[in-house]
Amino acid sequence: GPRITFGPEDQGALQIDYKGQFQMTVRDTGSGSNNDDTTTNFNFRRNRLAFMGKYGDMLSLYVQTEFTEDANVGTLGVASTNQGTEFQLLDAVMRFKLNDMFHVNVGKFKYNLSRENLEACEMPLTLDRSLFIRAPYVTTRDTGVAVWGNLFNDIFQYRIDAMEGRKAVSGDTAPDSNFRYSFRAHVTLLDPEKDYGYKGTYLGQKKVLTIGGAYQFEPKVAYGDTVAQTGEKDYKAWTIDGFFEYPFEGIGTVTASAAYEDVDLDDAYKYSTNFDSGTVGLNGQKNGWYVKAGYMLPNLPLQFFGRYEKWRFAELNNIFDQKVDWYAAGANYYLRGQNLKLTFEFSHTNFDQEGVYSGIEGANLQSKDFNTFITQLQLIF
Amino acid sequence: GPRITFGPEDQGALQIDYKGQFQMTVRDTGSGSNNDDTTTNFNFRRNRLAFMGKYGDMLSLYVQTEFTEDANVGTLGVASTNQGTEFQLLDAVMRFKLNDMFHVNVGKFKYNLSRENLEACEMPLTLDRSLFIRAPYVTTRDTGVAVWGNLFNDIFQYRIDAMEGRKAVSGDTAPDSNFRYSFRAHVTLLDPEKDYGYKGTYLGQKKVLTIGGAYQFEPKVAYGDTVAQTGEKDYKAWTIDGFFEYPFEGIGTVTASAAYEDVDLDDAYKYSTNFDSGTVGLNGQKNGWYVKAGYMLPNLPLQFFGRYEKWRFAELNNIFDQKVDWYAAGANYYLRGQNLKLTFEFSHTNFDQEGVYSGIEGANLQSKDFNTFITQLQLIF
Amino acid sequence: GPRITFGPEDQGALQIDYKGQFQMTVRDTGSGSNNDDTTTNFNFRRNRLAFMGKYGDMLSLYVQTEFTEDANVGTLGVASTNQGTEFQLLDAVMRFKLNDMFHVNVGKFKYNLSRENLEACEMPLTLDRSLFIRAPYVTTRDTGVAVWGNLFNDIFQYRIDAMEGRKAVSGDTAPDSNFRYSFRAHVTLLDPEKDYGYKGTYLGQKKVLTIGGAYQFEPKVAYGDTVAQTGEKDYKAWTIDGFFEYPFEGIGTVTASAAYEDVDLDDAYKYSTNFDSGTVGLNGQKNGWYVKAGYMLPNLPLQFFGRYEKWRFAELNNIFDQKVDWYAAGANYYLRGQNLKLTFEFSHTNFDQEGVYSGIEGANLQSKDFNTFITQLQLIF
Repeated sequence: GPRITFGPEDQGALQIDYKGQFQMTVRDTGSGSNNDDTTTNFNFRRNRLAFMGKYGDMLSLYVQTEFTEDANVGTLGVASTNQGTEFQLLDAVMRFKLNDMFHVNVGKFKYNLSRENLEACEMPLTLDRSLFIRAPYVTTRDTGVAVWGNLFNDIFQYRIDAMEGRKAVSGDTAPDSNFRYSFRAHVTLLDPEKDYGYKGTYLGQKKVLTIGGAYQFEPKVAYGDTVAQTGEKDYKAWTIDGFFEYPFEGIGTVTASAAYEDVDLDDAYKYSTNFDSGTVGLNGQKNGWYVKAGYMLPNLPLQFFGRYEKWRFAELNNIFDQKVDWYAAGANYYLRGQNLKLTFEFSHTNFDQEGVYSGIEGANLQSKDFNTFITQLQLIF
Repeated sequence: GPRITFGPEDQGALQIDYKGQFQMTVRDTGSGSNNDDTTTNFNFRRNRLAFMGKYGDMLSLYVQTEFTEDANVGTLGVASTNQGTEFQLLDAVMRFKLNDMFHVNVGKFKYNLSRENLEACEMPLTLDRSLFIRAPYVTTRDTGVAVWGNLFNDIFQYRIDAMEGRKAVSGDTAPDSNFRYSFRAHVTLLDPEKDYGYKGTYLGQKKVLTIGGAYQFEPKVAYGDTVAQTGEKDYKAWTIDGFFEYPFEGIGTVTASAAYEDVDLDDAYKYSTNFDSGTVGLNGQKNGWYVKAGYMLPNLPLQFFGRYEKWRFAELNNIFDQKVDWYAAGANYYLRGQNLKLTFEFSHTNFDQEGVYSGIEGANLQSKDFNTFITQLQLIF
Repeated sequence: GPRITFGPEDQGALQIDYKGQFQMTVRDTGSGSNNDDTTTNFNFRRNRLAFMGKYGDMLSLYVQTEFTEDANVGTLGVASTNQGTEFQLLDAVMRFKLNDMFHVNVGKFKYNLSRENLEACEMPLTLDRSLFIRAPYVTTRDTGVAVWGNLFNDIFQYRIDAMEGRKAVSGDTAPDSNFRYSFRAHVTLLDPEKDYGYKGTYLGQKKVLTIGGAYQFEPKVAYGDTVAQTGEKDYKAWTIDGFFEYPFEGIGTVTASAAYEDVDLDDAYKYSTNFDSGTVGLNGQKNGWYVKAGYMLPNLPLQFFGRYEKWRFAELNNIFDQKVDWYAAGANYYLRGQNLKLTFEFSHTNFDQEGVYSGIEGANLQSKDFNTFITQLQLIF
C-alpha cells in the first residue's frame, strides 16, 4: 500500500497495507460418517489491514487488524459447529527508539519467548509457523512493555518484557494477579538480525547464523484445584533456538532452523481433578522441538521446504501424556517476493494415542491421525 | 475518499471510502402490548469502510468492513432482545485480470447466483435489494475462487465459481464437506454490463437490456435427520433475471427488472422432524419472484420506484408452506448522485397464514402483516 | 496521522489518526484469597483508528473504531472471568453545516446530556471522564439526529437531538418503542466554546467560562414488572454544569469544573421485584455531582489535578440506596501536548455500604472500598 508523508520536513509517515493469506484445505478426515470422509475448506489464514506510522527518528507505530471467520478446520481436527468470527486489533504498539541499544515498545505486540513466534507471519519458511509453540493463557501477542537493543556491533541482542500474561481476574478464578516476565537474547554471527521481528527466510539476500534463548515466568498463574481454590501453580518456560541461512553461489539458498521449548505449569494437572483447564491442552504444559529446512533454487523463485516436530503434552484432547509427531513438506513460489506468493504444503499429524475421549477439554474429542494438503495464495498489498 | 497513488510510475493506487446508509424506520406493529404498537428505530443499514487497491493493470484488491449493531427491526418482525453487534471484513478479494475474457477472483466476495444479490449495495433501484433472495448457509458473500469474463464484444458474460458454501463442519453436524459451485451467464444487448457487480439503476447514463440466468449446487449439504445423522440432502438453485433501463429524451429514464429464483434443499424438512434448521426459514427451501420498476424525471434528480415480490417458503416462522407477498413504493432524491441520496420507501409485508407458532426456528414466533416506512440518508465519501 | 486532500480545488480531505491510551493499573484488592491481594493489569483504555473527512465547507464525516479487550478491572471491582473483546464503529456521523447557527448531525455520535460526556476522550482534565455519569440503556454514544448551533456572537449554544435511546425491542421486553429526546444549552462568557465537542482543558490556550444545562427524556422505556409486563416507566434526566479555565500570566493555568446530574427512571425498582435490570446499577436511576480542578505550571508542561464525586444509586451491586464517594489526584505531563501525554492518577472508591450480595445484577457481587493507581501513556498519531 501507499506510504503517505506529512508534517514539517515530512517527518511523519503512514503506510497502509493489506495482508491476506487465502487457503484451500483438503484433509483426509473430519467429515461424513464416522468423520472418515474428506474435508474441503476455503478460508483466510490471515486477513489483515496494517497501519504503520512513524514520526521523526524516535517514534513509530504499528497497528494491525485481524479478521478470522469460522476457523473450523483446526490443528487437531474439524469442529462440529462454526467457530464464529473475530475482528480485533492484533497489534497496537507504540515504539520509542532512544538509540539502537535501547528501544521501548508499549502496547500489544509479540512477547519474547520463541524465535518461531517472533518470525513475521507473512515470511515463515514453511506454510506457517509451528502450530504447537504458543505460550499458555495468551495468543501470539500479549500486552505490556518491552525494552530491547543491539550491542557489540549488533552481534548481541537482548530483550526484556513485562506483560499481562494471564489476564487479571479475581481470586474466584486464579490464585493471584501478576505480570509475566520474559528475557531473551541472541548472538548473530554473520549478517545481523537486529529488528524486533525475525524472518523465517531472507530469500537468499542475507547470510545468517543466529543462536538464541529465552526464559519466561509468571508466578501463581493458576489453581491446581479451582473448586477448593487451592494449589497455587507457577508458569515457567524456556527455549533455545538456532537459525541458519546461506546463499551458495550458483547452487541456491539453504535454510535450516531448530528449537526446543519447555512449558511448565508446575504439574497443575496432577494436583486434583479440578485443575485449571488452561494448564493443559495445545497451549498448556508441554515440551517439544522442531527442525525445519529449505532450499531455494538459484535462478527461479521456487523454494522447497520440510519440517518435523515432536511434542509431548501433559494432556491433549483429554488424553494424558499424549505425544504428537508432525511432518510437513512443500514449496513456496514467489511470484513477486513475499508480496505475491503461492505455497503448497502437505502435512501429516500423528497422535501417539488415538481415540475419542471426554474430559476437562470437552465431550467426545477425537484424536486420530490425519493428512492435510493446503494451497495458499499470499498477497501483501 | 481520496485515491492515493504510489510505486514506480504510480502503478499502485489505494482509495479509501466510507459508505453509510442511515435509516429512520417506523413500523406499525412490533412493540407494546400484544406487539400492536408502533415501533420506531434509528439505525445504520450499512456502515462501511472500503479499501480499494490496484497495482498495474492486472492486480486489484477490494477490502471492505461492515459494522452492524442491534438490527432488532427485521424482515419478519421486531426482536425481543438486542441482536448484538458484528464488525467484520465483508469483502476481501484479490482480483487478477489476465484479459477481459478471463478474470480470476480469490477470497471473500459475492457468489454468482441472482443478479439482485450482485447489484451494488449502494445502487439498488428501490431502498434495498430483495429481502428474500439469499442462498442458504451463506450471507450475501461467500469464500472461494471465481473465473469470469466478457466475450463476443461484451455481449456475453460467463461466471463460474467454486466456493465454501456451508462452512466445513464435522460429520456430527452435516453429512459431508463439499464446495458449492455456481454457473452464471448473461446476454446484454445494448450498452454492455461488463463488470463483476451490476447496478440497480444507471441513472439514465446507460441504455441497458440484459437477460441472465444461473445455476448453483452443493451436494450433501444437510441431514434430513440431524439426530440419526441420516438423509443426505443436496442443495440446488436456479434463477433467471432480466433488466432494462432506457433514458427517453425529454421524458425521463425508465427502469424495469424482474427475476425468478428457486432454492431446493431436497425436501429435507419432509424427511423427519429433526431436519436441519438451515434447510428452512428465510434462506432455506423456497421459490419466488420479484418485479421492480422505476421512473426518473428528466430534469430533476428524483426517481420514483415500485416493487412487488411473491415468495413461497417450505417453512417460515414455524409455519409450513407459508406464502409472503411484499409490496413497496418510494422515491430516491439524488442530492449528489449516489454519493448523497435521500430515499423514502413504504412497504407492506403480507403473510398468507398469520399466527404465533413455536417450532424448529424458535418459540412464539409471530407472523402478522405489517407496514413499514423508512427514510434513508446515504453518504458515500 | 496524515491529512490527504482530493477532488477539484482540494475540496475533499481525509485524515487518518490512531489514538491509544495504554494503562498500567495497580489496585490494592480484587485478586487472591478473599480478593484481598493486589491486582496488576496492562490494558488499553482506548485503542482507536479515526477517519475524519470533509468535502467543501458544508459536509464533514467522523468515523472512528474502538477496540476493547478483556476490561476485567472495572469501576466497581475485578471480574472473575474475561470480559471478552469488542471491535466496533464507535462513531459514524455525517455532519452538515448550513451555517454556524444551524448544524445537523446524522448517525452515531455523543448525545447531548452532560458536558462531561461531551468532553473529548483524549482531552479530559483528570485521567478520564467521570465513571458514573452515563445515561441508561446507551453507552457514551447514541444513534440519531441532532441539530445545534451558536447564536449571539457564539455566546449561546443550543443542541436538540432525537436519538434511539433504548434500542427498539418487542413488547415482550419493553412497554413501548420511543425515541429519546435531549435539549442542551450553554452560555460561554469569555472565549467561545463553539464546537460540538468540549474539552476538559485547553492547556492555557483559551480563557473560558461556560455554564450549561440539559434535559433528556424517553417515555415508557422499561417495565416495572417484566414478568407481568406492567408498570410503564419513563426515563427523565437533567444536569447543570460549569467550566472555568484561565491562564494567569507567570502563575500558570487554573481549571475548575463541576456538575450535578439526576437520572430518574420513575422508581421502577420499587414497582416489583421483577423490575427491568437496566433501571438500576451504574447507569440506572441515580443522582450525584462532581467537582474537578487543575493547575498547570507556567513554564513546564506539567498539570496537577484533583477530582471529587458523590453519587447516590437506587441500587448498585444489589445494594439498594447505595452511596459512592470517589476521590482522585494526579498529574499530566504533556511531552507533545495531547499527542504524547503521560498521566498518573491515584483514586479511592468508597462504598457507603460494604458487603457481598446476590440479586438482579448477578450473584455474589462485592462492594468493598479500594484504591487504584494508574499510569497512562497517551499517543495520538
